[in-house]
Amino acid sequence: MIKVGILGYGNLGCGVEAAVTLSDDMELVAIYTRRDPKSVTVKTDTLVKSTADLDTGKEDIDVLIICGGSATDLPEMTPKYAKLYNVIDSFDTHARIPEHFANVDKASKEAGKIGLISCGWDPGMFSLNRLYATAILPKGEAYTFWGKGVSQGHSDAIRRIDGVVDARQYTVPVQAALDRVRAGENPELSTREKHTRECYVVVEEGADKARIEKEIKEMPNYFADYDTTVNFISEEELKKNHSGLPHGGSVIYTGETGFDGNKHVIEYSLNLDSNPEFTGAVLTAYARAIVRLHSEGVTGAKTVFDIAPAYLTPASGDELRAHFL
Amino acid sequence: MIKVGILGYGNLGCGVEAAVTLSDDMELVAIYTRRDPKSVTVKTDTLVKSTADLDTGKEDIDVLIICGGSATDLPEMTPKYAKLYNVIDSFDTHARIPEHFANVDKASKEAGKIGLISCGWDPGMFSLNRLYATAILPKGEAYTFWGKGVSQGHSDAIRRIDGVVDARQYTVPVQAALDRVRAGENPELSTREKHTRECYVVVEEGADKARIEKEIKEMPNYFADYDTTVNFISEEELKKNHSGLPHGGSVIYTGETGFDGNKHVIEYSLNLDSNPEFTGAVLTAYARAIVRLHSEGVTGAKTVFDIAPAYLTPASGDELRAHFL
Repeated sequence: MIKVGILGYGNLGCGVEAAVTLSDDMELVAIYTRRDPKSVTVKTDTLVKSTADLDTGKEDIDVLIICGGSATDLPEMTPKYAKLYNVIDSFDTHARIPEHFANVDKASKEAGKIGLISCGWDPGMFSLNRLYATAILPKGEAYTFWGKGVSQGHSDAIRRIDGVVDARQYTVPVQAALDRVRAGENPELSTREKHTRECYVVVEEGADKARIEKEIKEMPNYFADYDTTVNFISEEELKKNHSGLPHGGSVIYTGETGFDGNKHVIEYSLNLDSNPEFTGAVLTAYARAIVRLHSEGVTGAKTVFDIAPAYLTPASGDELRAHFL
Repeated sequence: MIKVGILGYGNLGCGVEAAVTLSDDMELVAIYTRRDPKSVTVKTDTLVKSTADLDTGKEDIDVLIICGGSATDLPEMTPKYAKLYNVIDSFDTHARIPEHFANVDKASKEAGKIGLISCGWDPGMFSLNRLYATAILPKGEAYTFWGKGVSQGHSDAIRRIDGVVDARQYTVPVQAALDRVRAGENPELSTREKHTRECYVVVEEGADKARIEKEIKEMPNYFADYDTTVNFISEEELKKNHSGLPHGGSVIYTGETGFDGNKHVIEYSLNLDSNPEFTGAVLTAYARAIVRLHSEGVTGAKTVFDIAPAYLTPASGDELRAHFL
């Protein structure tokens, strides 16, 4: 049995808890929290412990799945715990990946451990599909579309506006753009042409809706470059119709081969009821992989690109060849 | 530069020739044939040589891409040449994969080489997607649909019927079945419910079309279990509208996570203008991978499951993390 620890118990930590529970070859040893462990109620009967226990380096776990945020948690946590345990995270600040990779690589190599970063579906499964497609068809182009799904970052940005009580933002791919890409047109698409943003907003009584709508639509980076629609709804409606965290999207790659310019379209798409639960499931499969790789003497920082697929499942090579090939 | 040899120059060998030509880090050294080399005209200015040269074991190649048939060529060729070179094939007789793997493993281990078998899109990319999805969502179900595309085996079967001059058979997935699977219904689907077969047949003048149609539709294994339509057309029409070898299909995986039964759909689909050119491109990327793995001292038989994705491209780890993650 692979002994797993989870650090952090938000939506993602809870998704990992569920995924480990579904894995016959894994045992959830403890969930670690920076909060008072007594204040945290988890879904299974797993022990909740303090990060102080984790810091001793003495916890009996084969891998620690770190479920923190990319902005401030992971840049600090992952290198810190890579000195003590095999670790895995879902770091998704693209521009800072090289720096994060270097920090984790140094820590995990010194400790003789493995640290796998940027795991999930994007970065993660979408990255893999961009890589596989480009390797097979070097003459081609990759397009990534996200949604329809909830962007938590954009929802948070709306919540920070004065007069807003709660909000939910959906990223929606533009059907016409999807159609053009799938038809092999290789279009140049602007940000506005690829996605729209749909906002569902609950405001305080008497709030100035026109001002709030304007603030949302003109918000730089988040909304200004998109066609954005704002719907004001009641708190009840938000709870009833927008409480889930669905997401998904597609990597579409179009490429050419041969002497006659034959065209090919490769598409990988996800349609997810729960973004954190799916991300948690990907993290769990890769946690298995790094424990197995580590038992072969491998150390250092890794990404999904470095992991042979066979390591992700408990099945033997014979079983894989017989049932999956 | 990776030095590549191709063994066999049918549609697939020609597809590999095109793919190697598109790969900046590869050099096509020679195309080997069992025919008289003088009788074989290739698309590039590559040297055509006899398999007798290959048999010496002295050819200056890093990898041999074997483009033979699975029925009789590959079971003999791949183990034979695995004793002399790094080799790769597209062996696709599912029931005999364990035996073929064992034979290639023995030969390549003794020679200190790598032999990668069953590479292409199914087996190959579809296999990978069945594996990744199952590893992430162990509670779920994989569905594979093929087409719309030309099945060469089924086309050949029709051609063997008395009175038939030429034929082209398309395998077509049933839209209603695709819709049910994508909707997450997890249906049990019979062979007939998943695919139909469309045949375009050219017959001799005065041939008994009713008899030919009956023979096709009742042919065991090939057509009897399917809803089959037979269209009699002229030789000109066959050449004009059915001379390509398009194919494709989808692996659709539906699975559950979490404590509330959240559902997820993962779909990988291919839409290929040319089946042999795409298969050739996959073989070429994996040929690169095994040469790189071999340079690290790895030997023995492998499948796509055993190859970390990073090995498929000439890009460095830094480049991959910066541009694909």
